Amino acid sequence: MGTHPENERINMRWDGWGDPDRAHGLPGGVKLLLAGVLGRVPKASAAPSLAGVVLTTPPLDDADLAALADAVGAAHVETGHDVRLLHAGGKSTPDLLRRRQSEQVAPGAVVLPGSEDEVAAVLAVAGERGLAVVPFGGGTAVTGGLEPDAGTHRGVLSLDLRRLTGLVALDDTDQEATLWAGTTGPAAEAALGEQGFELGHFPQSFEFATLGGFAAMRSSGQNSAGNGRFDTMVTGLRVVTPTGILDLGRAPGSAAGPDLVRWFLGSEGAFGVITQVRLRVHPVPEVRLFDAWSFADFASGADALRRVAQLGTGPTVIRLSDEAETGISLAQVGNIGQALARGCSAVVVHEGTDSLTQARREATTGVLRAAGGKPAAEKLAASWDHGRFKAPYLRDALLANGVFCETLETATTWSNLHVLKAAVTEALTGGLTQEGARSRVLCHISHVYPTGASLYFTVIAGLGPEPLEPWGRVKARVNDAIMAAGGTISHHHGVGTDHAPWLEQEIGAVGIRMLRAVKAELDPAGIMNPGALLGGS
Amino acid sequence: MGTHPENERINMRWDGWGDPDRAHGLPGGVKLLLAGVLGRVPKASAAPSLAGVVLTTPPLDDADLAALADAVGAAHVETGHDVRLLHAGGKSTPDLLRRRQSEQVAPGAVVLPGSEDEVAAVLAVAGERGLAVVPFGGGTAVTGGLEPDAGTHRGVLSLDLRRLTGLVALDDTDQEATLWAGTTGPAAEAALGEQGFELGHFPQSFEFATLGGFAAMRSSGQNSAGNGRFDTMVTGLRVVTPTGILDLGRAPGSAAGPDLVRWFLGSEGAFGVITQVRLRVHPVPEVRLFDAWSFADFASGADALRRVAQLGTGPTVIRLSDEAETGISLAQVGNIGQALARGCSAVVVHEGTDSLTQARREATTGVLRAAGGKPAAEKLAASWDHGRFKAPYLRDALLANGVFCETLETATTWSNLHVLKAAVTEALTGGLTQEGARSRVLCHISHVYPTGASLYFTVIAGLGPEPLEPWGRVKARVNDAIMAAGGTISHHHGVGTDHAPWLEQEIGAVGIRMLRAVKAELDPAGIMNPGALLGGS
Repeated sequence: MGTHPENERINMRWDGWGDPDRAHGLPGGVKLLLAGVLGRVPKASAAPSLAGVVLTTPPLDDADLAALADAVGAAHVETGHDVRLLHAGGKSTPDLLRRRQSEQVAPGAVVLPGSEDEVAAVLAVAGERGLAVVPFGGGTAVTGGLEPDAGTHRGVLSLDLRRLTGLVALDDTDQEATLWAGTTGPAAEAALGEQGFELGHFPQSFEFATLGGFAAMRSSGQNSAGNGRFDTMVTGLRVVTPTGILDLGRAPGSAAGPDLVRWFLGSEGAFGVITQVRLRVHPVPEVRLFDAWSFADFASGADALRRVAQLGTGPTVIRLSDEAETGISLAQVGNIGQALARGCSAVVVHEGTDSLTQARREATTGVLRAAGGKPAAEKLAASWDHGRFKAPYLRDALLANGVFCETLETATTWSNLHVLKAAVTEALTGGLTQEGARSRVLCHISHVYPTGASLYFTVIAGLGPEPLEPWGRVKARVNDAIMAAGGTISHHHGVGTDHAPWLEQEIGAVGIRMLRAVKAELDPAGIMNPGALLGGS
Repeated sequence: MGTHPENERINMRWDGWGDPDRAHGLPGGVKLLLAGVLGRVPKASAAPSLAGVVLTTPPLDDADLAALADAVGAAHVETGHDVRLLHAGGKSTPDLLRRRQSEQVAPGAVVLPGSEDEVAAVLAVAGERGLAVVPFGGGTAVTGGLEPDAGTHRGVLSLDLRRLTGLVALDDTDQEATLWAGTTGPAAEAALGEQGFELGHFPQSFEFATLGGFAAMRSSGQNSAGNGRFDTMVTGLRVVTPTGILDLGRAPGSAAGPDLVRWFLGSEGAFGVITQVRLRVHPVPEVRLFDAWSFADFASGADALRRVAQLGTGPTVIRLSDEAETGISLAQVGNIGQALARGCSAVVVHEGTDSLTQARREATTGVLRAAGGKPAAEKLAASWDHGRFKAPYLRDALLANGVFCETLETATTWSNLHVLKAAVTEALTGGLTQEGARSRVLCHISHVYPTGASLYFTVIAGLGPEPLEPWGRVKARVNDAIMAAGGTISHHHGVGTDHAPWLEQEIGAVGIRMLRAVKAELDPAGIMNPGALLGGS
């Protein structure tokens, strides 16, 4: 059973990242590198075909489907095998590994409302009929937040807002735009670009994720120091909950009690469905200036980034790879010679109007130079920019070749950064060694703040043909280490189901009670994304 | 009965603003101006003496006092007439007018805990014995949030954190400081200044208000574009609720669910007591550059400020007075000739390191000039800076002379700014005319954002010897007009009891249910600041 034409969107690969046409094999250079680092790794076993997977979640019954058809129209209730499987999870490495199993859990139906009223109608049907609802966004979640978990309910729906897309309003005086939550990153930029504006929010998931997903996950873009954090761009939200609709964000800078917009940034679909996002937009920059820098070591590079963040010279992007990541990256872009050199590379981008941007770049340059930075080939920065959305495709190639590859991330204050980095690295390598796997851990700073920074880790390991369970043990050890070392359980991947067991350590028992109290008030039947954020009951 | 020495702090005037030694009469120029604007205004009737006021709230019983003494020590439970009266309300004009009545409501006792454990112990006693608790902060609230309202309880305590002051920790690498919530603005700056840092948060209440109060009220400083908003400076909070303690703000940029710090910014003491505030601090600026500008009218000036905010050239202060306020201000500083000229004056301040600050100032200057601004005498900016904390003293002199004077404020998008300004002005002048009073309304933009700005109104009126009730009617009309015109009920004074009836229009019925759900969870007995934020039950 195919997809109804009106529900079409270029789907990501069902068992990998992104556009199937852009999948590729392992570059020769990487193969060589891997052999040196991990030794001989057996190829992964062949995955089942899409059609060959058996879906274990029972489909919904006829009365369910009739009620849903009443809510959104029969054409927008998809129950085909392929569509359900495409909505069976997110894109973490464990998600992709689960896609190789012969039996898989999938939502009973994928429901595609065409208006806010229809979203409310779907939640009403779900509440009446005892069905859980998982808001799908763009399907790029990496912390288990899209698990088709029925919780205590009879069945589970995937709610896909791909019909709620595009610009609702743009005020060019206020430089503020309202967009439907189902709009993807590229669609938003295209709609705004026609009128000379841009969002400039570029997380790794940019090409597929939706604005509603960015908001619900407190997304952090790669424009780390500029428009990096989605939560600083959002000025208003509309949210449909099972018990009513919220229209939040009445005025900039209001002091009318707690800012409830902020409650739904990071809400992960646990309280309701974000249907519209109002955002600050800005004119398309006149110039973008790329610089690459080299530092003697990670500590001196981190110190330089700190000085830039605290002085506030305003780069749009500023990131620093550690020694291990610098070596691998240089190898990837073919600079094997440089890869053998020591040090850490940084990428800096400034953008905006011509005159201000030049001045800011000069100020940043002054700080980095004074902190021991040496200018490096500019093409390294351009190469980062060119390749910024390609990493997940490389992961697919690695997994296909039997190499386990995953990313995880955290953040802390500057003064605690190296303690946290060492603790996570030790938990990864120690944990993987205990599982009998050789590994390599790479790390970079992707986001800087005046008081601290994020740490983004990539790990590759020879975990063997059944990596799910051993990786689960290693990941738990890493999360424990993050909490013990004072880090946050997530700087930008979110909580989902994977991190939910650690949330109480993050916000305390009283914080958990606050979340549960609002959940009970807005979603008394507990139908919204059971298991995500607050974990199973 | 005097105050125990350990509980001493320079108190504000019991029946006016600030330091009694800085009170003054009406300057001759202002008297002249008033006669022209308002006509003949009868002098206010004499207020009772401090000792002559009868307190109508029954004092607590012996068992209450014994339990409180157990919690904080007998020396820190103040029940003297004067101390109670000094904690009987905030500093809005209605508050000050109520201080002239012969019978007044006051808290049964003022309790001064000396540790976080003692705060928790006071809340426990209050819960057990059916007493409401009003966190006092620095006592500068202007929206009724300090009303000694027992709600459904038997009595009411004022909780004063003046013993919980000073620096807990300062990390100069992270540029982050933790301070006790009872620390006043000047005390915080003194403690940080010793180590080369500053907060740079200067609301009108700076000299008396506390950091806990700044946080609880989502305070906005006069450094509007720099460190104006307290909520952007706060990185962590400790909060004692009746049912447990929260320690929030684990890492910069966390995406671990909703940011609960933001729930308590604007919480107004309705959920618990903020005991510690963690903040981003910054080095004391090398330079501060003051500029004054003149615009042909408010519309062109506002448009110029918008361009600066959207380009992000980074002034610390940027504010614009409308024609009426410009005239009065110039008259006050003795420039009567200029006061007769048309136009609107703006004040701009840049600060930071020498080189960056000069560059930013040049960029701002370029924008303002291109938008039609003309440089004005720099001394006007210096004069604003010099007089920035004096306005409330002038209000005391006006009230003593029978002239009603009050301020109120709101915010909206740039495109709605003039509609909102006209609506508020009409509600004020129309309402006051209906009450038989001549009036003058002044307005300025104090805070700018990329998407909008705040509007701050000052009104003077000849409302007669009993202005409380007629002003109540006018203020209600203004609040209705703000909501009808799309403004927020408060940009920085907060909700308190005065604005509580309008909060549902601001955040919707579902938003109110969220606040009530968290209130019921954290404060099931409803002892925390009844009436504030959520209004009476």
